[in-house]
Amino acid sequence: MTSSADARYVALSGGVGGAKLALGLCDVLADPGRLIVVANTGDDFEHLGLKVCPDLDTLTYTLAGLANEETGWGRAGESGAFMEALGALGGETWFFLGDKDLAIHVERTRRLRTGESLSAITSDLCARLGVPARIVPMSDDPVPTIVETEDGPLAFQHYFVRERCRPRVLGFRHEGAAQARPCAAFIDALGAPGLGAVIVCPSNPYISIDPILAVPGVQGALAACRAPVIAVSPIVGGKAVKGPTAKMMAERGIAPSAAAIARHYAGLIDGFVLDEADRPQASAIAATGVAVEVAPTVMTSRADKQALARTVLAFAGRIGAAG
Amino acid sequence: MTSSADARYVALSGGVGGAKLALGLCDVLADPGRLIVVANTGDDFEHLGLKVCPDLDTLTYTLAGLANEETGWGRAGESGAFMEALGALGGETWFFLGDKDLAIHVERTRRLRTGESLSAITSDLCARLGVPARIVPMSDDPVPTIVETEDGPLAFQHYFVRERCRPRVLGFRHEGAAQARPCAAFIDALGAPGLGAVIVCPSNPYISIDPILAVPGVQGALAACRAPVIAVSPIVGGKAVKGPTAKMMAERGIAPSAAAIARHYAGLIDGFVLDEADRPQASAIAATGVAVEVAPTVMTSRADKQALARTVLAFAGRIGAAG
Repeated sequence: MTSSADARYVALSGGVGGAKLALGLCDVLADPGRLIVVANTGDDFEHLGLKVCPDLDTLTYTLAGLANEETGWGRAGESGAFMEALGALGGETWFFLGDKDLAIHVERTRRLRTGESLSAITSDLCARLGVPARIVPMSDDPVPTIVETEDGPLAFQHYFVRERCRPRVLGFRHEGAAQARPCAAFIDALGAPGLGAVIVCPSNPYISIDPILAVPGVQGALAACRAPVIAVSPIVGGKAVKGPTAKMMAERGIAPSAAAIARHYAGLIDGFVLDEADRPQASAIAATGVAVEVAPTVMTSRADKQALARTVLAFAGRIGAAG
Repeated sequence: MTSSADARYVALSGGVGGAKLALGLCDVLADPGRLIVVANTGDDFEHLGLKVCPDLDTLTYTLAGLANEETGWGRAGESGAFMEALGALGGETWFFLGDKDLAIHVERTRRLRTGESLSAITSDLCARLGVPARIVPMSDDPVPTIVETEDGPLAFQHYFVRERCRPRVLGFRHEGAAQARPCAAFIDALGAPGLGAVIVCPSNPYISIDPILAVPGVQGALAACRAPVIAVSPIVGGKAVKGPTAKMMAERGIAPSAAAIARHYAGLIDGFVLDEADRPQASAIAATGVAVEVAPTVMTSRADKQALARTVLAFAGRIGAAG
């Protein structure tokens, strides 16, 4: 067990919800440079000839203080001159790329074509934007999420943005996962001494966390790591705080609940944080042998994010001390 | 000889100066669809991973009524959010790409990668933007202009924009010209019946017109075409109306003058239009066997552009009738 002042932390994250907790962690850690946020890249795609990495960028903008706080994604003070002009040229406009945001896609695409890795580019761009934590893509290899729907298989962003999550979901495929290698910084962090906790952020388990877990070597490294693995429920009161998590669970025949999320992560996690609204489910989850913490998990204000981060870190400290 | 109402016209053009005359021609022709503007693509380059075609775009924006009238290039009401964000990411900002303008580079690059030709893409984009004339790149094959300078060879935009035309010019190379094929629409137009004139716009002869002439087959097709070939001087009173033409001439040991421009085009042109400021040079040019017209050639207002267009068309009509 490691005292929290010296400890390193690994957070697994999708976009908006995960970025909120990551921001809270950055705020409350004495040295946010000891936080590695592993970003889901399953929803990355090539669009307009550009490599777009939505979760990576949401994390980057959020931790750099550049995010649009209203939407949770994209940049603050964003404009749409490019998109409007593109529409007039007959280009595809279903996926909004703001004028400022476009810079990261153009620059990343250019650098990827010179042979630089996604992780090296991410690391450099984060440094330039003043991101205090380290953001690491789960893999430098593409592992695109394919959503199997009743309308047939859909590339993730086609399902998520173009079709607005309308088609009923039958399952998910993580294409290319078998050949992918996890980023070295991610696996190294899981094995390094002084790891305080692995935090599974309140992200969609199917489309944000499972893609990370699908990369060969990740589950083994998580099982082998000595630090507690703690998940925060993205389901509060039977509903997703944001996004299609509850809809996806229902379509797969699972009643959306914090307990169902805990079951989804069974075998992976040592601790589970659920919202006060779901306190009645705490004992059933605890009965499965997982430590349980009940706390306010809906992060609206900056103080909410910091409070949840403190709760998670303290919870990890207690599990670590007991383990 | 063809009456001007039914005639077709071909204009060879670089960027700003050529686009002004092309706009005037569009305004005064009964059917601007009978005008083919052949754009220099020698200053095209790949920048930030995007294919940028400055002259093609200046022509497109000018004829679509979208151009920035102050600069002559770029789009009206342009913004620079992308460029500012790119700078913060450490990207190259020496070549300004406005937020609106960026759309044409992204969309064109995307379509080129699918295997579409530059001419087909240009034709479609022009139609979408309501360009009344036909704009055709000189070639679908790249023919990048290399400027031989005392600092060594420079890619055109590095010389022109990054180095601001500072290094002394020793000469020009049209890389890949030997392998390039001219656009079929261009050569077909030169050979088609009903051609009223070929107009060499008041563009830089070295970097805007010579690249077009360097494409195999173009000079032969111009020599074979029955319509008069008429050039408008880009030099007025010993100075270039815009850009480095006079500087380049001086560096190559040629006193910048309208007469020197006429000499540059000797053997190619049947008629030459020079500015009233240069009237004293008219008789010397006429003595070389070229028909000469003296007229106001500096195009500031829309009326100036239309007046010069009318002058050129009437001049062509007279040469055609005499020929």
